Amino acid sequence: MKPTHIEHIGIAVENLQEAIKYWEEVMGLKCYNIEEVADQKVKTAFLKIGEVKIELLEATSEDSPIAKFIEKKGAGVHHIAFAVEDTDTALEDAKNKGVHLIDEHSRKGAEELMIGFLHPKSTFGVLTEFCCKK
Amino acid sequence: MKPTHIEHIGIAVENLQEAIKYWEEVMGLKCYNIEEVADQKVKTAFLKIGEVKIELLEATSEDSPIAKFIEKKGAGVHHIAFAVEDTDTALEDAKNKGVHLIDEHSRKGAEELMIGFLHPKSTFGVLTEFCCKK
Repeated sequence: MKPTHIEHIGIAVENLQEAIKYWEEVMGLKCYNIEEVADQKVKTAFLKIGEVKIELLEATSEDSPIAKFIEKKGAGVHHIAFAVEDTDTALEDAKNKGVHLIDEHSRKGAEELMIGFLHPKSTFGVLTEFCCKK
Repeated sequence: MKPTHIEHIGIAVENLQEAIKYWEEVMGLKCYNIEEVADQKVKTAFLKIGEVKIELLEATSEDSPIAKFIEKKGAGVHHIAFAVEDTDTALEDAKNKGVHLIDEHSRKGAEELMIGFLHPKSTFGVLTEFCCKK
């Protein structure tokens, strides 16, 4: 299993509108989609630079993984998502190589992707997502 | 100023050889360069995926910025580097938009790049580097 490219970088933010303003006005990118992912308790905004998306993530609830992340580590890079041909195959392959998984099977994420996470304890601290188009 | 693409993602690691092994064996990437940046007190390893480089960073001294980062936040994503046409112009442009800079002027980084950092307090927690070829 070899990912083809970085699909997106997930960034935990406290205020989505303020963060979008920064990424548009200072970094010169353009927000093209805002989407709520109910089961993750997040509101997301997408911008694109080259082949990579920047995914800004704001918690919609105090028990959202993003709220917990910010409480522990502060706002900033939350995860890196790697595009793979098939998320389930990539998860299984990583598991066979000794990686501890957060998701044993792929699930539905934002932007109509099937996603699955590896545990950062197995990935040297980088919360790693695999994703593929449905 | 609009960056063209993400040049690299800097990842703080405790042990460069172990991290390289993970990125090669589990993620399927290939380390193509190992380099020491003396003034930053780091040893770096580079792998590439799509248009983006993964830069693994190991501290070579206890007072290295990478050692301090790991002590405070743990191993993981340290910074994101955006390719710009000219680093000094991009730094000045960001400053004019109210961003606090770590580097007022560009300096020499790894892989023969001229680099400069924005302060994460101005960038919603994302330690942001601008870089260009010399």
